[in-house]
Order: sequence, then structure tokens, then C-alpha cells
Amino acid sequence: EKDEEEDVEGVTRVPVVRLRIGEVAEASSVVVLPVCAADEREVLEAPFECRSEGEFGVVVSEKGWGRWVVLPGWDPLVGLGKGGVVVSFADARVLPWKANRWYKEEAILVVADRSKIEVGADDGFYLVNGGDGKGLKVERGFTLKEKDFTQSLGTVLLVVRPPKEEDDDQLSDEDWE
Amino acid sequence: EKDEEEDVEGVTRVPVVRLRIGEVAEASSVVVLPVCAADEREVLEAPFECRSEGEFGVVVSEKGWGRWVVLPGWDPLVGLGKGGVVVSFADARVLPWKANRWYKEEAILVVADRSKIEVGADDGFYLVNGGDGKGLKVERGFTLKEKDFTQSLGTVLLVVRPPKEEDDDQLSDEDWE
Repeated sequence: EKDEEEDVEGVTRVPVVRLRIGEVAEASSVVVLPVCAADEREVLEAPFECRSEGEFGVVVSEKGWGRWVVLPGWDPLVGLGKGGVVVSFADARVLPWKANRWYKEEAILVVADRSKIEVGADDGFYLVNGGDGKGLKVERGFTLKEKDFTQSLGTVLLVVRPPKEEDDDQLSDEDWE
Repeated sequence: EKDEEEDVEGVTRVPVVRLRIGEVAEASSVVVLPVCAADEREVLEAPFECRSEGEFGVVVSEKGWGRWVVLPGWDPLVGLGKGGVVVSFADARVLPWKANRWYKEEAILVVADRSKIEVGADDGFYLVNGGDGKGLKVERGFTLKEKDFTQSLGTVLLVVRPPKEEDDDQLSDEDWE
């Protein structure tokens, strides 16, 4: 299942992907990334470079880290070289677009690329520190530029929603969006 | 592909599994384990407890570690609680059974359970320090008992062979075994 964030003009910018229960991923295209809490220090500390080594695809990180996640080799992740990080949020209210019901009820993972911290495109999405002790959030390039922010913690590549207990009911799904 | 070590009496003890290229593993049954070089200190240092947390199956390790591998949720691994570790060897000559050609030409991963260090069954296989600076190897319970060894670094659960470049030629495969 794959839906995409659509902004007011209907332009798709950040893929929002729901992990399927028992989602199968070819071992050759699995991506392993370090996981952080929604905390700026952790995002800066998490290992920056992780490479896949040898025939077994052993993930070798530049430094030790204690939280990791395995994701299917989705398009935006496969091209991810250095700087990839996953930030886990208790719910999706940290996203800057319309807050449907699921935003408050589902945990999400935000995958960001820390090698791209420049606030570039107006329609890009960036991981930033919300300030005032509010922790991290995702913000639009346009909004950041309005506030004269030129740097972020990273460019957001993907938002991952958790698998659903039942994925047979399309109707219920439409209810929720 | 799954072959098994057969001892002289033809009794199967340790599964030897070849990873298939593009082997698919249900995300719900992927196993992530810390990887060590064939070095006693590393085996003792590698995180002992790794649990899977939350809906995304984030792997939370008791301490940071820099090398990890994702394996399909093969039977012997799924039941693995605390103590699981993967030791990577340049070739399979560290195994105590007959050395066919592939043993010298293929890297292997040995998956061991460090929560079971007692040398129990004669026909069990154990990860031990070969002594004399030879590094680690896999030894039979029977052999260890003859030397009055009662403890090992862990019980061997599984030996993993790398994916083959071509997995279309059953004949060539038989040549090699």
C-alpha cells in the first residue's frame, strides 16, 4: 500500500508508505538503518556511514549503535548512501500536512538523509528541531525559508506507517484517511 | 537450498543452509544478529540481548555494536532468545567435518547461541577457541569431551553459505559437494 502526501496544489512530494504485515523484501534489497528517538542529539550522534559488506550483506557501521531497523529496499532508500537515519515518532502530528485521524493514532518512522541538510526546494520536506523543547518535526522548505532557516537536520525521504492488524478492509482504510 | 552435515553414522546435526540470491524473508520473521570476527574477545563482547520493539520491529540492543546481519527467519534462529551471535569466517575449514572443495573457497557464517556454553551432547557442535593463536573453530561435543573441555563459547545452531552467482545449475552444485 502506498499513498502520498499531496499538498494543496495536489503535487506529491514525500511518499508515505505503509509497511505490510509480513511484507517480503528481497534480501538483496533490504535496507538497514540506525534508529533514533525524536531528539536532535541522537540524530547527530547516530552513525553516519553504514555500508554493506561481502556476500552476506553484513552491515558495517562506522561506530556502534544500539537501535536498528530493517526496511524493504524501497526506491528512495536504495539510493541512500551516507547519512541515512530513521527517526521514530509516537504519532504523525509532527508532519506538516493535514491531520487526519490516523496521524494521532499511529506511530511513524521518518527516514531522513543527513547528507542533505540545506533547505533547498520550497516543496521539499525537512527534519528540524521544533524549538522550545518541542522536539523534532518535519517542516516544508517553504515554511523554513519564511523563517530564514537555511539548514535542517536532513531531507525527509520517506514516511513509514506501521503494518495494520487487518489489511483486508479497504473500506475501513478509507474511513481513516 | 538446504543441505545438512552428516556424520559418519549419517546422523544429521547442524543445518548448513545456502542463502539464495534475492532470498525473500517475511519482514515479520527476519532475524537481525550482531556479527563478530573469528575472535574470542569479540564473541564475548558482542551484545548479548537484542529484542525487537514495537510495530516496526526495531532491533534494540543492550549496547552499541557496529556489525549486523539480516537473516531470514530460519527455524533454528526464530527460537533464539538472548545470546545469539554470528561469527564470520573466511572459509569453512573451521568446521570439523569432511573438507570438500567448497570448504576452502566459500566464506561462511556460523550462528551460535552463547546462552548454551556447556558442552553437552557428544553429537552437538560448539564454537571454541582453537588455541595456539589459531582463532575460533567449530568442534564436536565428542572431541571436546575427550579433551576434558566442559565449556564452549556457544552452541552452533546453523552454518550459512553465501548466495551463489548462478543458482540454475544443480549439476555444478553436485560437483562441488
